[in-house]
Amino acid sequence: MEEALRWAGKARAQGEVPVGAVLSDTRGRILAAAHNQVEGPGQCAAGHAEMLAMAEGARRLGQSRLVGCTLTVTLEPCAMCAAAIGHFRIQKLVFGAYDSKGGAVTHGPRLYARGGSLHRPGEIIGGVQERRCGALMRDFFQQVRSSPTSG
Amino acid sequence: MEEALRWAGKARAQGEVPVGAVLSDTRGRILAAAHNQVEGPGQCAAGHAEMLAMAEGARRLGQSRLVGCTLTVTLEPCAMCAAAIGHFRIQKLVFGAYDSKGGAVTHGPRLYARGGSLHRPGEIIGGVQERRCGALMRDFFQQVRSSPTSG
Repeated sequence: MEEALRWAGKARAQGEVPVGAVLSDTRGRILAAAHNQVEGPGQCAAGHAEMLAMAEGARRLGQSRLVGCTLTVTLEPCAMCAAAIGHFRIQKLVFGAYDSKGGAVTHGPRLYARGGSLHRPGEIIGGVQERRCGALMRDFFQQVRSSPTSG
Repeated sequence: MEEALRWAGKARAQGEVPVGAVLSDTRGRILAAAHNQVEGPGQCAAGHAEMLAMAEGARRLGQSRLVGCTLTVTLEPCAMCAAAIGHFRIQKLVFGAYDSKGGAVTHGPRLYARGGSLHRPGEIIGGVQERRCGALMRDFFQQVRSSPTSG
């Protein structure tokens, strides 16, 4: 989570929502890491940290799915990322802050709690370094709201 | 939908699940089109037709979101794609076959039917060319199941 937090800090420095994600293999070696990249040139609305880290990991491994891998992310994944985590067959999901607004793991649609065909990670741990991960988000949005250009 | 079906056919020819998607702008001009690209070299589990078409459209427009655009896809979007459609601010979603197993618009989590922060397309039309879109899927999976290499 320290590494994911470091990537979240990079996002903040670029004016992106401060979310960082790290993908590691079955031995705990880091395969890929990313932060949100949504607003910059050449970036798009699907550029969440989790999506970018998993796509990069798949490229590095030369395979479509990430069976056995662990994804560590500073924020509870949204529905897009949570479903993608299933598609990629991530084995273990670790996340930091809970997201009562956009989260889809323990909030909203709770995608893994339903039946159906979506693959669910074998292990899910939420609330890791929750305070620090959440503070990053709160500070960011507080700053955005108080910025004179946001009005 | 004809163009989306054409792309779905391309997917089938490559051994991919036959789903095609077309992104068009506010004037109905096609901005991008894609088919599922999940299994080939350099591809990944998030390579659904919708994700690829929207990412390509954003690149072409040079903007992160696709405000006002229409996405036409041969199959009811899954949770990943349905949420991404919201993130991209797609105005109109048209889909072909309903997907009782993996769909997330009229089935499963019904993402747009819930409250919460997920953006919902202004207009959603399902079941367009349903018979042809569904037949493509059924034929594909029938063939996969009957293939000697699948056992």
